[in-house]
Order: sequence, then structure tokens, then C-alpha cells
Amino acid sequence: MKDGELKITFQPAGRSVFVLPHTSLVEAAGLAGIILQTPCGGKGTCGKCRVRVLSGRTSAAGQAAGGPLTERQLGDGYRLACRASAETPLVVEVPEESTFGAHLQILVGDTGEKGNLNPAVHKVHFRLPPPTSEDVRPDLARLRDAVGDVAVPADLLTEIPAFLRAHGWQGTAVIASGELAGLEPGDTVQETYGLGVDVGTTTVVGTLFRLADGAERGLASRMNSQIAFGDDVISRILRIRENAGALPELQHAILQTINDIIRAVCQQSGIPPERIYEVCVAGNSTMQQILCGFDPSALGEVPFVQVFDRAQTLSASRLGILANARAPLYVFPQIGGFVGGDTVAGMVAARLDRCERPVLLVDIGTNGEIVLSHGGDMLAASTAAGPAFEGARIRQGMRATVGAIEKVIIGEDVHINVIGNARPSGLCGTALIDAAAGMLRAGILDSTGRIVLPEEAPPGLAPALRARLQKDDGHARFVLVEADETATGEPICLWQRDIRELQLATAAIRAGIHLLLRRAGLSAADLGAVLLAGAFGNFIRRSEARRIGLLPQIPCDRIRFIGNAASLGAKLVLLSQEERRYAAEIREKTRHVDLSGDAEFQAEFAEAMIFPEADLDACSDH
Amino acid sequence: MKDGELKITFQPAGRSVFVLPHTSLVEAAGLAGIILQTPCGGKGTCGKCRVRVLSGRTSAAGQAAGGPLTERQLGDGYRLACRASAETPLVVEVPEESTFGAHLQILVGDTGEKGNLNPAVHKVHFRLPPPTSEDVRPDLARLRDAVGDVAVPADLLTEIPAFLRAHGWQGTAVIASGELAGLEPGDTVQETYGLGVDVGTTTVVGTLFRLADGAERGLASRMNSQIAFGDDVISRILRIRENAGALPELQHAILQTINDIIRAVCQQSGIPPERIYEVCVAGNSTMQQILCGFDPSALGEVPFVQVFDRAQTLSASRLGILANARAPLYVFPQIGGFVGGDTVAGMVAARLDRCERPVLLVDIGTNGEIVLSHGGDMLAASTAAGPAFEGARIRQGMRATVGAIEKVIIGEDVHINVIGNARPSGLCGTALIDAAAGMLRAGILDSTGRIVLPEEAPPGLAPALRARLQKDDGHARFVLVEADETATGEPICLWQRDIRELQLATAAIRAGIHLLLRRAGLSAADLGAVLLAGAFGNFIRRSEARRIGLLPQIPCDRIRFIGNAASLGAKLVLLSQEERRYAAEIREKTRHVDLSGDAEFQAEFAEAMIFPEADLDACSDH
Repeated sequence: MKDGELKITFQPAGRSVFVLPHTSLVEAAGLAGIILQTPCGGKGTCGKCRVRVLSGRTSAAGQAAGGPLTERQLGDGYRLACRASAETPLVVEVPEESTFGAHLQILVGDTGEKGNLNPAVHKVHFRLPPPTSEDVRPDLARLRDAVGDVAVPADLLTEIPAFLRAHGWQGTAVIASGELAGLEPGDTVQETYGLGVDVGTTTVVGTLFRLADGAERGLASRMNSQIAFGDDVISRILRIRENAGALPELQHAILQTINDIIRAVCQQSGIPPERIYEVCVAGNSTMQQILCGFDPSALGEVPFVQVFDRAQTLSASRLGILANARAPLYVFPQIGGFVGGDTVAGMVAARLDRCERPVLLVDIGTNGEIVLSHGGDMLAASTAAGPAFEGARIRQGMRATVGAIEKVIIGEDVHINVIGNARPSGLCGTALIDAAAGMLRAGILDSTGRIVLPEEAPPGLAPALRARLQKDDGHARFVLVEADETATGEPICLWQRDIRELQLATAAIRAGIHLLLRRAGLSAADLGAVLLAGAFGNFIRRSEARRIGLLPQIPCDRIRFIGNAASLGAKLVLLSQEERRYAAEIREKTRHVDLSGDAEFQAEFAEAMIFPEADLDACSDH
Repeated sequence: MKDGELKITFQPAGRSVFVLPHTSLVEAAGLAGIILQTPCGGKGTCGKCRVRVLSGRTSAAGQAAGGPLTERQLGDGYRLACRASAETPLVVEVPEESTFGAHLQILVGDTGEKGNLNPAVHKVHFRLPPPTSEDVRPDLARLRDAVGDVAVPADLLTEIPAFLRAHGWQGTAVIASGELAGLEPGDTVQETYGLGVDVGTTTVVGTLFRLADGAERGLASRMNSQIAFGDDVISRILRIRENAGALPELQHAILQTINDIIRAVCQQSGIPPERIYEVCVAGNSTMQQILCGFDPSALGEVPFVQVFDRAQTLSASRLGILANARAPLYVFPQIGGFVGGDTVAGMVAARLDRCERPVLLVDIGTNGEIVLSHGGDMLAASTAAGPAFEGARIRQGMRATVGAIEKVIIGEDVHINVIGNARPSGLCGTALIDAAAGMLRAGILDSTGRIVLPEEAPPGLAPALRARLQKDDGHARFVLVEADETATGEPICLWQRDIRELQLATAAIRAGIHLLLRRAGLSAADLGAVLLAGAFGNFIRRSEARRIGLLPQIPCDRIRFIGNAASLGAKLVLLSQEERRYAAEIREKTRHVDLSGDAEFQAEFAEAMIFPEADLDACSDH
């Protein structure tokens, strides 16, 4: 918890976040990974985002009568999350129907309704009448008459006659996508689990669900062990291109990471791995292909060709994943180039094709993925932002771990926040954005990205800031933390070259967004929403990111955090075959725009290197 | 060639048989394994069985004008095979359209038509445009756009990127039932073969076909190596029930037999085993289940339960069959109990559900399978005839190999024919039937199956026959060959106990036929045809078999040999997916009648032990 921040706890998930006063509950929930529905665009008219405040006080706006909530609901503590903001620490109950994917999550509740909880894997408990002279159906026909008309692989059929006779013609059939995937003694219908996995280049997150009711039973995340082979996808692809043995090594690495996660969630829940009957994976194209053992080499050169586009189903156990021996591994469909399964998963979670106004989905990372949805059409592109947002290539940059400056506020002086209540040892991506935005506002960074020299500083500049401008080999640098306050004993500065790196990273995203908007004949003002997905996107401060041009110039209330949308997408396809068909449909509808060879993109990119002049309203970010 | 027999050679198959004068060409063709179409029931009205006599003379009936053949056709040598019989040795050309399965075989001809030659496995040669910035389709989508929308197993997808790049984006795709089953460099479309296998308890026959045009490229048969584990299916099932390790041993034995056949046909044709892309198997339920590795133990006790009913598709290579690594193994659907895939295959070949009048399909063996088709309904039963027809349990019985008496004619004396121009060492099943029939006619065997004692012989009995009646421990025996003419120096006789064994075997088949007819409310006179399938059925003499009651009392021209119908059925499903659907349909339509627990059957069986009194017309059998 940082100074002045408020703790907001969301139930029944039990997740807490710390936010600044006046942060809207929609945003706070997003930070907690809970995506609330806001089909009206946060205007407070549809009532879909309603939550119930169990303790604490929200802003008056959230309590205004005349909206979609009744007096009685208001009296019971219900608020519109899009209008209500935190005034004190809060405990907030999130009704299942208010979340994205509510069509699915609604059935997790206690109503007992099944809705469209329809996982590809399910079980049927059966009791068969033993054969008699009047009933000489073959074993397989007898079983099918009880459990449905399933396909049966020959190796499993081999076991059926003995199984039925050894267990008194009773047991539980495991059925995966219409195919028999196992027979178990007794009634094990309730013991059916599945794992959703978001495979990131850096971080892998797995969630264990009970398939019978969608209940979450475990969650674990681990660093992707492929890190040892390179920080970003390009370095890993190069490794594979240059070394014939590297693909199996990298495949093994990610499989081990997934197995570590499985061990963790199984330990949390007391559920044995053989009760995991399906694994659903969403990752970028490179991660998905390596995981499957498909050579990603063609992603390492123009024109960036993928191996597959439609969803793949493999055998988890044949790959070496700790799960039931017959568990399928579902891998998300891919759109093209570097726009992979995690993007499709995010689009599924966000229902991206069903928005009334044009909407942009942005996942900022080493590769930024951008999808523009307008009138049912979707354009998707990826853009190489480089690792600046992860602190790489920044002179004193670092990942967002303990000791990293993660927030910079520039007023009369510089205020910072450090992760883990430690002395600062460097700065991470969010701080880089904050600092650049603050310096632009203070007039000590010009729109070309040049840090002004001390002698060029604007006359009204606060003296404390002026003192932080220092000359360095003909360029200027800006001191964020003096030497005596850092962990290293060295001052932490923003250097001219850092700003150049930030400009390159920002321009890549910005030019991608511009190009997609232009292709669709739209401008930023037409956007009903910008949805920020992914780990980094959920930590940036919108007004700062917008100030440097990383996000379009639209009001903050249209820029929304949607949390780990890829994980939610993986959960959805795990729990519902309709969602799987929807993922296929979304992929089919989306056109991939290859920016790499696009002449327009080069021009957009050059233009996007210049920071915007304008500054819109401030946002109530954390 | 035996005394007085005529050599008939059928082209283009090049198969020759030896028959007695006046044998109809339909029957001669059946002996050669060529099943001619006779939808009119052999009345000479439909013209479907027409053949062309290239050399030799046929009976006048075959040349009569006014039938479906034109004067010009008659002048060109065309004859109706159902009316024409052999007067001299003949060379006969069989037009493809005159054979059973003509809808398929027609395309084997030189017309170049494709008809419904539609094998489950086919190949597509492709040349893909390499990726460019304007065409960044994923490898898999690019391939699918060229070869069709096939499913691709993950392990094969693993190889695709490297294959396409190594071979200049060209090659040949193997497609099996809508799934990609291999990529091969170059254009190998013509090199696509499949194997049809008839797996009998005793004999296994394999035929190699070119799938592109249905041409036969090799044929081989081998003794089923499972013989070492027992002569009949029951002894093999018992072995499996008593010994946990026996199932894999027996499975290995039949797989080795199939591999021996594959080596033989590959050597004949110069085609490597990896160019065999599918194997289609028809066998009885026990053979099929053991081949698949499915435990047949439940066939070893009442109520005789099968493991499966619908067709199974397994991986041939995973079982260890010498074929392409991704070749599927198709195993015929089964009807119930001991009525298995060979029966379904025969029904497919005979188009059994499409007959205008009631038709009986009979396959006589250790297990007799009987199917009655009437008005689109079909009833199937199996009946345990025991091994008497194979020479077992007959005191001087033997298989139909060199030295076996295979034919007995009883006139003023006994005339015999021995296989292989050797001195006789025993008698096989056909001779047993001949001898019993002849003895019945001569009055030295009564209808209860008792061989009369010398002193009871009818007064008019020819002296040579009377001399052959000898007393043996209170019973009579009938000497077929005197001691000085045999290989062993012992006389070869028919003993009273041999007749009892024959009565049991015959009664099993006869009672089965009666029961099915009775279930359908029919009598033998209603039968439009009795089709004899299988090895043994094609060697018996119809009038003799009818005389002892093994076949119904109907005119010989309604009793037809249809050759190895199971092999033809296997060929049909190999070359056409429509035939495969038809096989599924036939199985679905057929009701299995379990004779084992049927009280009526016991009564029928007892009654069938008495030989018929009547004797109809003689047939012109070989």
C-alpha cells in the first residue's frame, strides 16, 4: 500500500488492490483482474456493471437516484461501478452477472442453472444391464446406449470388455469432444477439472477450474523458463533458426513451466494431476507454436508466416504435460504474423465484435497487439515496440520488481513510488511513461523528445525541477532520485537516450493504432472505447500514456483496463464449446494487417516519434 | 484337370477352372471367383450377365435369339452366362459391367470414367505459391487452400513447415478420410495402393489394388498362423480365456500372417509396403477382434457378446502391419455373436438387401453363417457346424490338400477324384457329402443315417457296391478305396461314426436355414436364390449337398456360387467410401438371431438330423 491509497477488496474472488481516492470501481475491479460489463460505455445508463458495496463509502455520483438502480437496490448497497468511485477503503461484492463472460459465470452461482456451461470434456456415470440371451448387444453398443453415441479410439476399446466385467458393468465415462477419453471405476463425475493457461513470453499463468460448475480451484504463475534462451520472441526464434536442437529445448522449457504450475495448483487444491482432463492454452504465435513443437522459424523473417491459423488440439500427455493420459490440449486459433492466440482469447473475453461503437483492443508489450473492431469488421496488427516498457535498453531501467520506481509524479518537485517499500535501484516502464509525460507538461522535454538543457529551461520552472536538469556530454539528463536516496548510491536519472528508446516504443504502438484507424476511415474521436489488456496495460496511468501519445487522445473514461483478458478467454473456451466456436468465428472475421512491409506505416511511425502537443483531462489513475 | 472336364479361362482376370460339360458359365465364373450379375434370377431376361466367348463352343440355349442380346452381339460372341453352358474348352471375356460390384469395376476398364471409385485414401499433388508480403497465409492454410479442407494431426503439422521449404513448396498430400496422412516429395499420385484382406480362421487371402483405378496388382494367401493355437475359433477363444498372455500371442500370429501376405504381394508387384495407404479387413467376429487386440473372451460363453458392432478404424502401423506409417486399418462392422465382418462383406458384395425375391446367403464352415434377405429385411444367424466339413473328426478325414479324395460318384461302382493326381490318403468334406448322397440314393444309407449291414442291402444293389459294404463291430462301413489303391496301404472307408458327424454338421446348417425361413414366414420354395459364399461353399456339388439336406430343396439353378464374397466386399470398401457407408447401412438393417438359446432351434436341429427322402433334379456340377 502506498501513501494515500485505498484498499479495495472484491468478493467473492477475495482479491484486493490499492488505488488512489476517486478511482472508479470499474477500474479498480479491472486492476484486480475482474472485468465488469460496460456496454453503455460507462455512461451510467445500462446498469450492467452494478456491484454491491459491503463496507466503506463511495462517491455521491454512484448513489444518484434516477439511474437504472431502484431505491431499494441503492438501499441494499448496490452501486454502478462505472459511476461510483472510492472515497474510503471498500469491500465490494461483484455479482457474477456484472462481469465479462457473465453469460458463463452466471452459472457458477448458486442458482444451479446450467446455462451454457458446456465444456468439451464431461463425464457420464453409467450402470449397464449385463448381457443376457435376450440382450446380446456388443459391449461397445451397450456402453454407447448409456453414455451417448461417442467415438471410441481402438486402444481404449481394447480395455472396455475387461473394465466392464471387472467393475460390475458400472463406472464413469470421460467424454472429450464426442470421443470416449477414459473409463473410471465408481462415480467420478464431480472430479473433473481443467486448466486454462496464458503463456506469455515472460510470464505464464495457469488457473485450475472444476468443469462441472466452473469454480476456480487454484491459480499459479511462473516465469517462462524460456527466458534462459532470450528475453523476447525474436531472440528465441533466432536461436531456433540457428540451432537444430533448440526447438525441442525451448519446447521442453515451456512444458516444464506449465508442469510447475500444474504441481502448484494441484497442491493448492489437493487435486491429483490425472483429474485434469483438458488444458486450454492462449499465447502469442511464437509461444503457441513452440509449445506445440511447430517450428516458428518463418516468424523470424519477412513476411512472418505462421504454421497454423485454426485452433489446434493435441494430446497433452504425449507432449509431457502432467494431466490425465488422454487429456486434450486446446491451443487457441491465431490471426497472422505475431497476432496469436492470446489476442484471440482477449477478443473472445471482450466480445470485441459485438460493440456498438468502434473499439480498440490494445495489449502493450515487447510486441504490441492492436485490434480495431468497427461495425463487425476487425483489423488486427502487431507492432514491435521493443523491450523499453520492460525496462530494457533504458540506462537505469529494470523490470517491475522490488526496488523499481513504478510511478513518477512531477509537480513542484518529483514524487516517486517504489515497489516493495525499498530504496530505488532503477525505474520500470510505467515510471518511464510518467516521467516523460510530467516533463512534457513542465516544459523540460520538447515535442521532438529533446530534454532541454538547464540554460534553456522555461522561466517559470519550479526551482526543484530546475535543479534536477543536468548537462551530460552535450545532452541533458533529468535526475529522478538523488544519489543519497538510492539503493546503489548513484543518482537515478532519465537520460536523453532513454527518451529516444521511449519514443521508438511509443511510436510503434501509436503508428499501429493510427494506421488501423485510417484503414477503417476512422479517427480517435470515433472510438467508443480503448480496452487495455495484458499485464503492462493494466499498470500504466492512462493520462500519462495518452500525454506521450501511447494512447489515443480520447477522454480517460473511454480508456478501460480489462485485466488479463487472455486468461479469461482461456477459461471461457475451457468451460464452453460455444466459446470455442466463437473463437473460431472471431478469427475468421479478423483481417490481419501486416505493418512490417507497409510504406504508410513507415510514414506514420516517423510522425509518431513527435510527442503530442495537446493534453486532455487528467484521469483518476492509481 | 480331371477326366472329361473342360478348361474355362476367364479374361481379363486370366483365371482358369475345370468343369464338367454343361456347366453354366455363371457357375464356372463363380468357381473362378468372378461373380456375375443375375438380377433376373438366371431366367435369361435381363441380359446383365452377358459375357463374350473368344474361343470354344457353348450350348445352343446361350445362342437363342429373341433374348436381350441383339443378333449383332450374338454374332460378336456375346452369350448370356446364365443360359450358356460349356460344350468345349472355352476362353471367355467378362465385361466389367457384368460382374457383381460392376458399378465399381466398370471404372477399371479403359473408358477412363471415374464412376464411384472413391477410396477413403487419395492423394493430391500440389504446387503452392511461396509466401510474400501480399500473401502471408500460414503454412497450414496455404496447404489447405491447395489440397482441400483437411484435418491435420499435430505430429504431422510439426513436419509441414520444413517439408514445404525443403521441397520448394511442392509435393503430394496423402489424405485419408478427410485427414492429412502424409506429405511426399514429388508427384506420387499414381503410387497409391491398398490391401483388402479376408481373414479366415484357417486361410487368409490378401489382394493388392491400385487405388487410383482399382487395378489388381497382387494376390496371396497364407494359412492363418493362429492354427498353432487351435483349429477353430472356440479353441482359440478358450486359450485366451485361460491364459492372460494368449491374446497378444494370437494377435501377433495373425499380424505376422498378414505381413507375410504383404511381403508376397509387394514382391509380385514391385511395390514397396510404404505405398500401401490403407488395409481393409473382413473376418469373422473372433478373427477381427483378435486382430484388433479386443478380447474375444465373451464370445466363449453364452450369450456370445461381441466387443463392437460398427466398423473400426485403427492405425495399421501401430499394430505392426507392414504398410505406410499412417495407413488406417478398416475393420468391417459385425452383426452379432459369431456373425462378423466377413458376412457383412459378403452381403455388401452380393447387394443382399436389393434382391427382388427372398434370398439366402450361406457360408459353410466350422461356423456356418446364414443370412436371409426378404423384402429389405435381413436376418442373420451363425450355427456351429463343427469341423467335419474340414475333414476333422472324420476317421479318415483330411483337409482338401494333395492326396484327399475330393469327389465321390456312386453308380454301378464307386468313382473318385483325388487332389493332386496322387494316391488317396483320406477324404475331405466335399467327398464326405458326395459319398453320403450317393449312398442314400443307392439305398445303403437310410434316412436316419444308418449304414445298412451287408445282409440288409437292397436286392437290386450293384454287386460292386455290395462288396464294399463291410461289417465292423456291429456297425457297417463302406469302402471307398481298397487298400491296394491307397497311399497308406489301408482301405479308405466311410464309417458309421463319420456319418453321425456329418449329420451333426449338416443339421446345424439345415436347422439354421429352417429357423430363419420360419421366422420370416417363408418356405424353401419361396427362395429366389441361395448364394453360396466362402471357400468350402464353392467346392461342394449342389445336388449332393441338397440330397443330404445341407441345402434347401430347390432347383439347382437357384443355388449359386458367389466365390470369395468376403474378399470382394473388402475390395469394394477399399475402393469406395459409398460402399463403406453401404456396409454400415447393411449392418444396421440386419437383425441377429441367436440360435444358441433358442428352444425352437433345438427341435429343428433334432428334426434336421434325418436326411431328406426326396431328390430333385441333378445339377451340372463339376
